[in-house]
Amino acid sequence: MSYDLKSMLSDFKDGKISADEVLLKFREKPFDDLDFAKVDLHRKARQGTAEVIYGAGKTAEQIIGISRSMLKNGQQEIMITRLDRDKKDLIEREIDLSYYETAKIGYIGKIPEPDGIGTVLVLCAGTSDIPVAEEAAVTAEILGNKVNRIYDVGVSGLHRLLSRLDDIMSASVIIAVAGMEGALASVVGGLSDKPVIAVPTSVGYGASFEGITALLSMLNSCSAGVTVVNIDNGFGAGYTANMINHIGG
Amino acid sequence: MSYDLKSMLSDFKDGKISADEVLLKFREKPFDDLDFAKVDLHRKARQGTAEVIYGAGKTAEQIIGISRSMLKNGQQEIMITRLDRDKKDLIEREIDLSYYETAKIGYIGKIPEPDGIGTVLVLCAGTSDIPVAEEAAVTAEILGNKVNRIYDVGVSGLHRLLSRLDDIMSASVIIAVAGMEGALASVVGGLSDKPVIAVPTSVGYGASFEGITALLSMLNSCSAGVTVVNIDNGFGAGYTANMINHIGG
Amino acid sequence: MSYDLKSMLSDFKDGKISADEVLLKFREKPFDDLDFAKVDLHRKARQGTAEVIYGAGKTAEQIIGISRSMLKNGQQEIMITRLDRDKKDLIEREIDLSYYETAKIGYIGKIPEPDGIGTVLVLCAGTSDIPVAEEAAVTAEILGNKVNRIYDVGVSGLHRLLSRLDDIMSASVIIAVAGMEGALASVVGGLSDKPVIAVPTSVGYGASFEGITALLSMLNSCSAGVTVVNIDNGFGAGYTANMINHIGG
Amino acid sequence: MSYDLKSMLSDFKDGKISADEVLLKFREKPFDDLDFAKVDLHRKARQGTAEVIYGAGKTAEQIIGISRSMLKNGQQEIMITRLDRDKKDLIEREIDLSYYETAKIGYIGKIPEPDGIGTVLVLCAGTSDIPVAEEAAVTAEILGNKVNRIYDVGVSGLHRLLSRLDDIMSASVIIAVAGMEGALASVVGGLSDKPVIAVPTSVGYGASFEGITALLSMLNSCSAGVTVVNIDNGFGAGYTANMINHIGG
Amino acid sequence: MSYDLKSMLSDFKDGKISADEVLLKFREKPFDDLDFAKVDLHRKARQGTAEVIYGAGKTAEQIIGISRSMLKNGQQEIMITRLDRDKKDLIEREIDLSYYETAKIGYIGKIPEPDGIGTVLVLCAGTSDIPVAEEAAVTAEILGNKVNRIYDVGVSGLHRLLSRLDDIMSASVIIAVAGMEGALASVVGGLSDKPVIAVPTSVGYGASFEGITALLSMLNSCSAGVTVVNIDNGFGAGYTANMINHIGG
Amino acid sequence: MSYDLKSMLSDFKDGKISADEVLLKFREKPFDDLDFAKVDLHRKARQGTAEVIYGAGKTAEQIIGISRSMLKNGQQEIMITRLDRDKKDLIEREIDLSYYETAKIGYIGKIPEPDGIGTVLVLCAGTSDIPVAEEAAVTAEILGNKVNRIYDVGVSGLHRLLSRLDDIMSASVIIAVAGMEGALASVVGGLSDKPVIAVPTSVGYGASFEGITALLSMLNSCSAGVTVVNIDNGFGAGYTANMINHIGG
Amino acid sequence: MSYDLKSMLSDFKDGKISADEVLLKFREKPFDDLDFAKVDLHRKARQGTAEVIYGAGKTAEQIIGISRSMLKNGQQEIMITRLDRDKKDLIEREIDLSYYETAKIGYIGKIPEPDGIGTVLVLCAGTSDIPVAEEAAVTAEILGNKVNRIYDVGVSGLHRLLSRLDDIMSASVIIAVAGMEGALASVVGGLSDKPVIAVPTSVGYGASFEGITALLSMLNSCSAGVTVVNIDNGFGAGYTANMINHIGG
Amino acid sequence: MSYDLKSMLSDFKDGKISADEVLLKFREKPFDDLDFAKVDLHRKARQGTAEVIYGAGKTAEQIIGISRSMLKNGQQEIMITRLDRDKKDLIEREIDLSYYETAKIGYIGKIPEPDGIGTVLVLCAGTSDIPVAEEAAVTAEILGNKVNRIYDVGVSGLHRLLSRLDDIMSASVIIAVAGMEGALASVVGGLSDKPVIAVPTSVGYGASFEGITALLSMLNSCSAGVTVVNIDNGFGAGYTANMINHIGG
Repeated sequence: MSYDLKSMLSDFKDGKISADEVLLKFREKPFDDLDFAKVDLHRKARQGTAEVIYGAGKTAEQIIGISRSMLKNGQQEIMITRLDRDKKDLIEREIDLSYYETAKIGYIGKIPEPDGIGTVLVLCAGTSDIPVAEEAAVTAEILGNKVNRIYDVGVSGLHRLLSRLDDIMSASVIIAVAGMEGALASVVGGLSDKPVIAVPTSVGYGASFEGITALLSMLNSCSAGVTVVNIDNGFGAGYTANMINHIGG
Repeated sequence: MSYDLKSMLSDFKDGKISADEVLLKFREKPFDDLDFAKVDLHRKARQGTAEVIYGAGKTAEQIIGISRSMLKNGQQEIMITRLDRDKKDLIEREIDLSYYETAKIGYIGKIPEPDGIGTVLVLCAGTSDIPVAEEAAVTAEILGNKVNRIYDVGVSGLHRLLSRLDDIMSASVIIAVAGMEGALASVVGGLSDKPVIAVPTSVGYGASFEGITALLSMLNSCSAGVTVVNIDNGFGAGYTANMINHIGG
Repeated sequence: MSYDLKSMLSDFKDGKISADEVLLKFREKPFDDLDFAKVDLHRKARQGTAEVIYGAGKTAEQIIGISRSMLKNGQQEIMITRLDRDKKDLIEREIDLSYYETAKIGYIGKIPEPDGIGTVLVLCAGTSDIPVAEEAAVTAEILGNKVNRIYDVGVSGLHRLLSRLDDIMSASVIIAVAGMEGALASVVGGLSDKPVIAVPTSVGYGASFEGITALLSMLNSCSAGVTVVNIDNGFGAGYTANMINHIGG
Repeated sequence: MSYDLKSMLSDFKDGKISADEVLLKFREKPFDDLDFAKVDLHRKARQGTAEVIYGAGKTAEQIIGISRSMLKNGQQEIMITRLDRDKKDLIEREIDLSYYETAKIGYIGKIPEPDGIGTVLVLCAGTSDIPVAEEAAVTAEILGNKVNRIYDVGVSGLHRLLSRLDDIMSASVIIAVAGMEGALASVVGGLSDKPVIAVPTSVGYGASFEGITALLSMLNSCSAGVTVVNIDNGFGAGYTANMINHIGG
Repeated sequence: MSYDLKSMLSDFKDGKISADEVLLKFREKPFDDLDFAKVDLHRKARQGTAEVIYGAGKTAEQIIGISRSMLKNGQQEIMITRLDRDKKDLIEREIDLSYYETAKIGYIGKIPEPDGIGTVLVLCAGTSDIPVAEEAAVTAEILGNKVNRIYDVGVSGLHRLLSRLDDIMSASVIIAVAGMEGALASVVGGLSDKPVIAVPTSVGYGASFEGITALLSMLNSCSAGVTVVNIDNGFGAGYTANMINHIGG
Repeated sequence: MSYDLKSMLSDFKDGKISADEVLLKFREKPFDDLDFAKVDLHRKARQGTAEVIYGAGKTAEQIIGISRSMLKNGQQEIMITRLDRDKKDLIEREIDLSYYETAKIGYIGKIPEPDGIGTVLVLCAGTSDIPVAEEAAVTAEILGNKVNRIYDVGVSGLHRLLSRLDDIMSASVIIAVAGMEGALASVVGGLSDKPVIAVPTSVGYGASFEGITALLSMLNSCSAGVTVVNIDNGFGAGYTANMINHIGG
Repeated sequence: MSYDLKSMLSDFKDGKISADEVLLKFREKPFDDLDFAKVDLHRKARQGTAEVIYGAGKTAEQIIGISRSMLKNGQQEIMITRLDRDKKDLIEREIDLSYYETAKIGYIGKIPEPDGIGTVLVLCAGTSDIPVAEEAAVTAEILGNKVNRIYDVGVSGLHRLLSRLDDIMSASVIIAVAGMEGALASVVGGLSDKPVIAVPTSVGYGASFEGITALLSMLNSCSAGVTVVNIDNGFGAGYTANMINHIGG
Repeated sequence: MSYDLKSMLSDFKDGKISADEVLLKFREKPFDDLDFAKVDLHRKARQGTAEVIYGAGKTAEQIIGISRSMLKNGQQEIMITRLDRDKKDLIEREIDLSYYETAKIGYIGKIPEPDGIGTVLVLCAGTSDIPVAEEAAVTAEILGNKVNRIYDVGVSGLHRLLSRLDDIMSASVIIAVAGMEGALASVVGGLSDKPVIAVPTSVGYGASFEGITALLSMLNSCSAGVTVVNIDNGFGAGYTANMINHIGG
């Protein structure tokens, strides 16, 4: 428990502690009742209760260890992102988990019923963008959202995209995933009056610069209402879409 | 009214039109009923009715012309962004408008009552970031949102930011505006479970590269729930915040 | 078949549909007759009938599946780009195809007789640029063009290039393929009065930055009439050359 | 008149010239008959006879001087690009010229009748892109092409672009001018089967990087048939469109 | 004064506050005693008592206002960086201040006696680097350090630098200021066993890219003990040198 | 031993040496007594006596050879950085050495007692940053410093960092290691009045550009007192921290 | 043999050839006597007679083929750069060649006696730069130059470089090879009054960007007389040094 | 005069100086005879005796001051680069100087007779490159070289360049100045067997990036013998050409 400021000042007057100690305490005071609040409450937002483990760069053993410790502490839903099949095979010998292969997401626990305001629509431009789109879609589902997927609707074949205008019009949040020139985000942003989260992908070659071109293109979208996440960051898009879709919660 | 497909085929059979003409029509068909819908309905979303004119690079005369044409067509609220005081002085001789000096926004019409889900919180890191923050804040207000401003709370003086934790916790959407290293977005993203729209500004010198550093920093935020708009794009942030704050509308 | 606008308004008057449904329909109307035109007619341009599959990042199984579906739908010519020999070996067990090894292009169907306006000339600067040059050349041939190849005529040995001046003068479209400093495009652009499509390649090392230097060099060509495609995009160059060579078609 | 190879060899045999001189001559021989051909014939292509002066960085005096020298040599059509109004005012005191203000092009002589294969269509995304679009359009007109202009049809208002589908379908060459994210080129490339010359403009702010984003976006277009010129290079686009539109000439 | 946690829980038991309010308070608790500590104590480090105002982008009036408020609150030393002569002239009509013209630093108050561990040595490569070097030197002096300046000792005239080896050997911290290729930092880092703070400057042209080359060069120094600050950031270097020179304080 | 200047001039007068030889000698004179000082004394700074071998790109044999030669010359402490386990296994067959696996540092000799002014605090943002943090920490320990490690305290979970405020306040030098957006350096710089050495890491993906984003972010830190080293350069940070922590030595 | 201009004109008058053919010929005339001079005489400069094959990206078989064809045509010295040991093993079964392992250069024929004006001095900064330095040194030797090598003389240990001042002063051309911050070129350029060819290497990590930092640093050298070649281009440096060292030849 | 090493060691034995003082002296010894050689002899190379003042960023007063001090010290030739006409007007009131307007070079003293090995040829691509070309040409002349200028010979009009083949073949050093895509360097490098110093200029627009494209292009030249200087660095090219043209001197 933190040391009380008034006692401290009185102690100082009585000569029990030095001026330097008082000075140090004063500087720290703003932050020193923190221990009591150590459990990270932020992520336990009502609308999605899963704790997230970033699987890339962790061994199967490390993931098992972290998961067990979470489970022991009462955490009942755990999501593991960027999880290769090999690691997943090792983990499921020890812990029960579902696995979304294309999204490379593992999940421990029960997926909640969708309770968001509306539907999260996930669009992607080409077939090579699907893994990133799936990361976004599965993330949103796991956190409690109804998700609608429309894939391979790049702007070079505009009629395919336009034939799904109903879905675009009725979504409450849209995730637009595209590599190469990333024009999908601008076109969709112009067709909808709901927020569009644009996800550039590293799909492309030459002057696509591993997603930089799509990233820049999306940041410069001529359609208002478009915001952008990092290259290939499907998880971040799904996570934010969930926040928006539960905004009043 | 568009030319009917069946009549067309029958005309073709009768030799009135050539095969080439049929082919051309078939290609166009997906789009050819468009005339009837020419008025841009998207922007008349219920939660914010202002039409937007991007003022930079337009003369006062051009702005007056466009505004008059809109007013004549029944548009009652018009917002003009990036409007210098000089142009504003010329415009207000002809048309009644309010002017937000720091935000460089002009407004024609009545500002709607706030009717969003919650409060839009606009934070900025330094005093030089205020013009961009104001562009975001005024945009959100004009579109019908309650806005809370907390300025000059950069992470180098963390206690100033933390002393406003109540405001951060109770907002429904947060706009974080910062130049230099842009760390504000990550810190705020870690403190809140609501969506954070990060706006990098061109404030800084040397290796800030006119906002590129802040932009990259925000795109790589370690806090989930952060999405990013273009450098100095306060308008885009305010516009998207309005969409989110009316998501169920 | 699309829902008629007038019926809809009458239905609205009669209370069969709500105002919201009318509003939604009005927004969609521009695009909703699309279903009828779903088949992609654009690529069936008279001067080249092949459908194109981008082979990179697709498995042999996927390519076989897509090809079969196309063949079933009456598509008789199919071109597969960026096709490795290994995948090609698997595919040809199931489907008859020709294979252009250097160009890494597979082809199903009969190559059409050249019927373009003139000759497409493909030049490249060094022997390492040949695979990209071949991708361009074979693409143009498959789409119905007479192609003339002159390889290894970089500007450091100007006499080799100049000894082929007849070919340069008599071509109707020129494709200039070069890595390193990409000077070939400017020199050829200065010698010919026909359009030059410049293809930067990733050939080089150090400050060639995988083709960026050649790309920038070509974009800044001092010779008018030079346009540029993405790094290593031989296909795009051949495809555009075909369009130009059939321009009146 | 150039020195004859045979005489030279005979002179060498007779001891009149040294072996070194012969060696030097042999190296030069490929190029030494050049004097006779010094007049630059390339630009006198039948389909457009104007000689071009790049006006930026030249004084009015220099432009007058060059023009007079050309006129004296029989050149009857002269086009001056990037010509400010101030310089134009000075020039027209001395020489008769037409002036295209938005395009910043001056023209001496008679504009030829359009004699190209079809129509050159010039599209641009926003009103700020118009000066570059006009540079392209006027260039094409001056060189003898019928030009069709459709401006302010950016992809954020897709219906405006689609309402002009007839024009897109019937053009023989298309020039697509756009700043910001440059998505117009991809969308148009997907709608037409004719060559699209994409012109990125420096319009935008922040991460548009003075046209780099639009440039990269266009180079990575997912629509085949799109080639790209330098940022703001309307002249180059118009010049190449003219070449294509006279390809069989 | 912050709300006590125990009272809060008791209030909750008694039904005076809701569970949601408790939850919110728990999240905030770590930070909520902050008000009491609002005065920023950090910068009042014993070894340098000046408060710093960043003058660029502030008007003379704003600087006067901030200074007066600080003085009223008992702050006796105030340093104003990046202060142009014009603003300085306006300020000194209202407040007494010293002015360092080359360093563009204004100072209110009494400069403290140097009380650091040793001498801060400021080196610069060329005469154009002197303003940045002076910003560093004056900053260090104002904060209470003995400063030794050696200017115009770039590595192209190595003997000039080496003739001052005594000064290099006897300094306790070194600031090396250089533009162009920034080699001074590496050479000095190799000659001394004390920390070298490298300051890249925007001096140079062409491929110096306004200081980027010097910055990169310094970050890649082959001499250990070299750390780097932002381009032209003389203040940051002087400030850090002061910290190091009072490290045990 | 160097040739005496006066003898040389006298030799010149007597005609024993030419004017050219004198001129050459005069130019060299500034540097020509160097032989006597060939042993590199700089690295034998009293506060840390280890000689450093950069292990990357050297074979085990080469490292053994260099180490033996150093040991023969009386060097008793040798530190080998970036040493893989495989090479280490080969080396320890020949020479006794300690190995720090995570830091990839090998060490020959006895680690000195810490004798610095205070404690070096090493912080890192995420678990993936630990190898770089350990390189810094072990380097500082080997050179004779007391080191305090606090890992996985990224700014997205601010309370974890703030709960260690005592450690931050009492350190004499701080090393802040972070990838992604690198915000840790700014936050820590704002909490401490001691020098902060920021180490960007290549941890991240997409627009983290292998550490460039963290590097730029740290260079633009809004907190004074932050200096930066190269990406992943834990060694450089530990080495400089040692210099600072022994500054008065 | 080229077609004579006068005969052509006479043929035209007689109606034997068309006006178009004449026009074409006139355009080509400047270049059409080229056939006679097809043998590339440039590389047979008297001071170095070797023909060069760039080995990277060619198979052993291709190199053998090219070499045999050259030998058959009387070329007696052939140099093969960037030749891996594996390819070399295959080649020497068929053709006698010397091999320089570190330089990765193969050589067929007799190395000429050095006949240059003076000595080519090759310096490099670190041991990792030696392969590039050797490529430069061996190239210069093979082309007929006396070469002096001084390696591992980076500027962080200045005395090692200065102890070789005699060699620096007496060279006629200097090649300075360095990675990381590339400061060696500037320091050497300041010590010598002979041309310095700077070769940046890809040695380094993090913000060395595979040699870009060294390249930029060298381009911005504060010492006049320094010119630069591409990253790792030891061959180009040795080749140019040879040209300079035989300049009067 | 420097303190003798032997006396010092004897003094140490006698206890007159401490061990620390000896240690310090030993470190310094390599450099401490420097005073005697302080005059910078390097630039007094026999083949060009002018001292150089970089005029940019210096006031007329500063230039006058430096010049007078040089003249007083016996320096008879002084070259001032990047000297604007305005400053020149002020300087010539005080000191006699010649002025080269296009080159922006001022010169005090007598221009030496050319005494180099051969001719320095200066080529440039466009008329806008002439100022940089003149800076190179005048520098070479002032330092004692015969200079041949051929301007406006860009590769888009190849015949103009080739008509001057005699000049190219007979030069001993070539300086190739070009902006935009910089192809001139490669073409000339392929035509000559003498060293080519390439000077990129900032001429161009858009993706020429103020000379970066020309710089990269020249660094990647496919012609051996090409080395490169900084953007717009005509002085550096002329200075190095002078060194090469006097190489045996």
